[in-house]
Amino acid sequence: MSRPLLIGAAAVLALGAAIALKSLPAQTPDSSKAASSTGSSNSALVDDLVIANRVLAHEIGVLDAYGHVSARDTSDPNRYYLSRAISAGMVTASDIIEYDLDSKPVAGERPDGYLERFIHGEIYKGRPDVMAVIHAHSPELIAFGSSSVPLRNMIHTGSFINDGVPKFDVRKFGGTADDMLIRNPALGKALAQALGGKTAIILIGHGVAVTGPTLPTAVSNAYFLNMNAKVEEQAIRLGGTVSYLEREPGAKRPENDTPAGAAANNRAWEYWKRQVITK
Amino acid sequence: MSRPLLIGAAAVLALGAAIALKSLPAQTPDSSKAASSTGSSNSALVDDLVIANRVLAHEIGVLDAYGHVSARDTSDPNRYYLSRAISAGMVTASDIIEYDLDSKPVAGERPDGYLERFIHGEIYKGRPDVMAVIHAHSPELIAFGSSSVPLRNMIHTGSFINDGVPKFDVRKFGGTADDMLIRNPALGKALAQALGGKTAIILIGHGVAVTGPTLPTAVSNAYFLNMNAKVEEQAIRLGGTVSYLEREPGAKRPENDTPAGAAANNRAWEYWKRQVITK
Amino acid sequence: MSRPLLIGAAAVLALGAAIALKSLPAQTPDSSKAASSTGSSNSALVDDLVIANRVLAHEIGVLDAYGHVSARDTSDPNRYYLSRAISAGMVTASDIIEYDLDSKPVAGERPDGYLERFIHGEIYKGRPDVMAVIHAHSPELIAFGSSSVPLRNMIHTGSFINDGVPKFDVRKFGGTADDMLIRNPALGKALAQALGGKTAIILIGHGVAVTGPTLPTAVSNAYFLNMNAKVEEQAIRLGGTVSYLEREPGAKRPENDTPAGAAANNRAWEYWKRQVITK
Amino acid sequence: MSRPLLIGAAAVLALGAAIALKSLPAQTPDSSKAASSTGSSNSALVDDLVIANRVLAHEIGVLDAYGHVSARDTSDPNRYYLSRAISAGMVTASDIIEYDLDSKPVAGERPDGYLERFIHGEIYKGRPDVMAVIHAHSPELIAFGSSSVPLRNMIHTGSFINDGVPKFDVRKFGGTADDMLIRNPALGKALAQALGGKTAIILIGHGVAVTGPTLPTAVSNAYFLNMNAKVEEQAIRLGGTVSYLEREPGAKRPENDTPAGAAANNRAWEYWKRQVITK
Repeated sequence: MSRPLLIGAAAVLALGAAIALKSLPAQTPDSSKAASSTGSSNSALVDDLVIANRVLAHEIGVLDAYGHVSARDTSDPNRYYLSRAISAGMVTASDIIEYDLDSKPVAGERPDGYLERFIHGEIYKGRPDVMAVIHAHSPELIAFGSSSVPLRNMIHTGSFINDGVPKFDVRKFGGTADDMLIRNPALGKALAQALGGKTAIILIGHGVAVTGPTLPTAVSNAYFLNMNAKVEEQAIRLGGTVSYLEREPGAKRPENDTPAGAAANNRAWEYWKRQVITK
Repeated sequence: MSRPLLIGAAAVLALGAAIALKSLPAQTPDSSKAASSTGSSNSALVDDLVIANRVLAHEIGVLDAYGHVSARDTSDPNRYYLSRAISAGMVTASDIIEYDLDSKPVAGERPDGYLERFIHGEIYKGRPDVMAVIHAHSPELIAFGSSSVPLRNMIHTGSFINDGVPKFDVRKFGGTADDMLIRNPALGKALAQALGGKTAIILIGHGVAVTGPTLPTAVSNAYFLNMNAKVEEQAIRLGGTVSYLEREPGAKRPENDTPAGAAANNRAWEYWKRQVITK
Repeated sequence: MSRPLLIGAAAVLALGAAIALKSLPAQTPDSSKAASSTGSSNSALVDDLVIANRVLAHEIGVLDAYGHVSARDTSDPNRYYLSRAISAGMVTASDIIEYDLDSKPVAGERPDGYLERFIHGEIYKGRPDVMAVIHAHSPELIAFGSSSVPLRNMIHTGSFINDGVPKFDVRKFGGTADDMLIRNPALGKALAQALGGKTAIILIGHGVAVTGPTLPTAVSNAYFLNMNAKVEEQAIRLGGTVSYLEREPGAKRPENDTPAGAAANNRAWEYWKRQVITK
Repeated sequence: MSRPLLIGAAAVLALGAAIALKSLPAQTPDSSKAASSTGSSNSALVDDLVIANRVLAHEIGVLDAYGHVSARDTSDPNRYYLSRAISAGMVTASDIIEYDLDSKPVAGERPDGYLERFIHGEIYKGRPDVMAVIHAHSPELIAFGSSSVPLRNMIHTGSFINDGVPKFDVRKFGGTADDMLIRNPALGKALAQALGGKTAIILIGHGVAVTGPTLPTAVSNAYFLNMNAKVEEQAIRLGGTVSYLEREPGAKRPENDTPAGAAANNRAWEYWKRQVITK
């Protein structure tokens, strides 16, 4: 949905200021501040991570007030970035914390971090190809998590679903039924092991973790995972037989990010990014 | 979905005026006015109640033009606050009325109050732990109210559903089928008794009443109750068998508001609050 | 959902102008212009009709780009108002045309009127109690129109459904399957006869006509008719047995607009009205 | 849903600048620039195509960040216009590329064009009556594509569905299961042949292609095709028997664009156009 143009003559002149006022990452000041607070110089990635938080919350409905997204440092594979525990829709560069892969803050104790940061750290630890992780609470995927009906590939952009989308029950690893949280490294590690080499995993009664070889592709993967679940549900309830989009027998798994797929995902990323920046 | 704040240099100077124009609660004038009109000095709570009205109407889709939300006075357990009978989405501090637990206005007759205020007063009367009550007309919960299929816990944030969500049929207590309203103290008392020690109750053919130990948690409870109903419906219509998120046998009911849950709900509250204030 | 506050200092001063710019009915100039073009002085009603168009299109999702709403003149029961054939979401006072009950424009030929205006005129002709008519294309009601499953009362605010919601098949009266339009007085009269004394009627393969004793109540009736259809659909697909909100045996039909119902509908009307005026 | 235009006195003066800022097509400069870059003078059509991109993305939810829309040159049937590969919601006149019917850019190589432009070119080649083509990824239509339940006409504005909506499986023509893309002229030609003389075709596991005799009618056709799919799904899941809106036996196919239908579609087009221009 588009957004209003509400602008005065003064505002036209003040557009730069206006964007700063929205707490979006200004290329220089904000991200350099984050960099100094995290001991890193990966300020472009921090800016993109802020954008990803906003896009997932405001543009494509993947994150509500409770989910989170992280990105691995592109210059140091043993570090990742994740905001402090505030809602994704209001994250700014100064909210980003740098973690090592044990999910310990690099710059010292941060009591304001996410309890469930181990979802991110433990996945990065075991999967060098993963550069971004999203933890969401999508209702359509929780529904599949509690149903005996498997999630299967329905859409051409959800090919990764043919690799399988495992389900993880935290109660089998010591998690409690009352909150189902990934509250320590051991539970994070168990989740990462259940994910294995796949793109996404359903947390039963809780949500999903989605990965990507780049931040834009992780965002698109989360978008398409939700869309695939909706299409499958709609197809099932039409009441006839359903044909799934299975990989040809003997076909090998395609590149994690085909050139056509990456191009399309970057196209979407540029659009969603512009939407959250200009409004 | 959130909306942008796009603002020019001149507008920055005029922000206070602008917010007043939107009738959002200015920290001092409005709430002190409300305080004087209600005989109370609990102005911070009044401000939060205005925010809750806006959040429930504009951010999370719990209240349409017809529902309402109240909060118990934190300094006097025999008093609660509820807006006069106007739509939640336009409530300001000066619309808030202070009631005693018999739902009589403290400052004298108010013919402009809600007919159904007894939902609030009678629940507060019997439940000293309840500090906020929401009465909504959520379609997904009315659907469960009229179905033989019980609402069951599907999501980790809906653990309170395992305590049971009773159904209340006002017709069995003298209510009329044509409007089903909780129009007097006796019907309110019958509803409160049916609720018992639970968090929420479905009013058959009408809606729901949701409680919380704090206002932010009551708001989150209403959000998760709707979400749980949607997830259960989606899981059922996939057509397979459904696994519910049941409490372990012998496990006792968790704290009404666990530290992790309260922290997450406060995080969401801060976000939703910012959304309704800045737009 | 709420909308942004995007306002400069100049804009605060210019708020009246801003509203005029949005083509909403200014109390004096626009409606008096409409009055002069229609030969009527019922300018308050014209203003309310403009509001109703905007509310139905922008606030409660009843009218898409194709539907329409009319109101009977409160001072002359043989006249009604309906916009020229433009989308409801952009109607202004100067677009309103005054018709007699044969759906002929009072002020002379208007080739820009709605082809289907006979839906309105013929219902007014036979129903002196009806003061407003809405013609919408609600998908959830078209679905009931083509299903053998009857629409039944599910919600306390849809009590009028217990009187019955007839279905009308224009093909049985000379309408064509390819467009199903109510394109002449005879088809409008057949529709009005099928409606009889009821509040609403489903046009098979096409949409719905909803009436009310006042314009605000007609708007609320359309809102609740859609909501009832959604609740019934949700209850059915849970897969258990469904209990309907039937009138007690021997109970007579309630007032068309009970005091409590009218008060609630006026409350919603004031809110929706403010939403379309201030944005 | 539409959005407000709230504007200050200063802003009124700056409106031209403001719209330019939003990159919407200014009648003269932008489109003439496009014309010069494409070697054409069909600037009004280019402007309308920009509007169509915005309407399909922002107003009626047909295009997400990945779909596209084209229009055939009204003065040269061997040329068509399509944006470079950017999301529809941000297309401006300077993004429009002119193609011949082999989908080669008229003004020389454009590596930034859509890989799937052959969907458009090959349909224009075989269908002189088609003046606009939309390629969308509507979930509700992908669901029908993978279900044994046929899409059938449910709504009066979807009469073209009675001509049939074929399904196309690109895998039978050398397409790969992993991306299902129409990535070359041969696949585009096979798709066009499967479409034949129909209005729309479902691409299995991928999306849909919708045509129209004018750009506004193509936009409306896409809107109604989605709506019809939703109505059919809702009718089916009510669980009774469903009556379809079939053409009378022996009735011939109506005009591709009846006067009443074209008038209604133009009405919607004027509204949607205003919505994307003023916000």
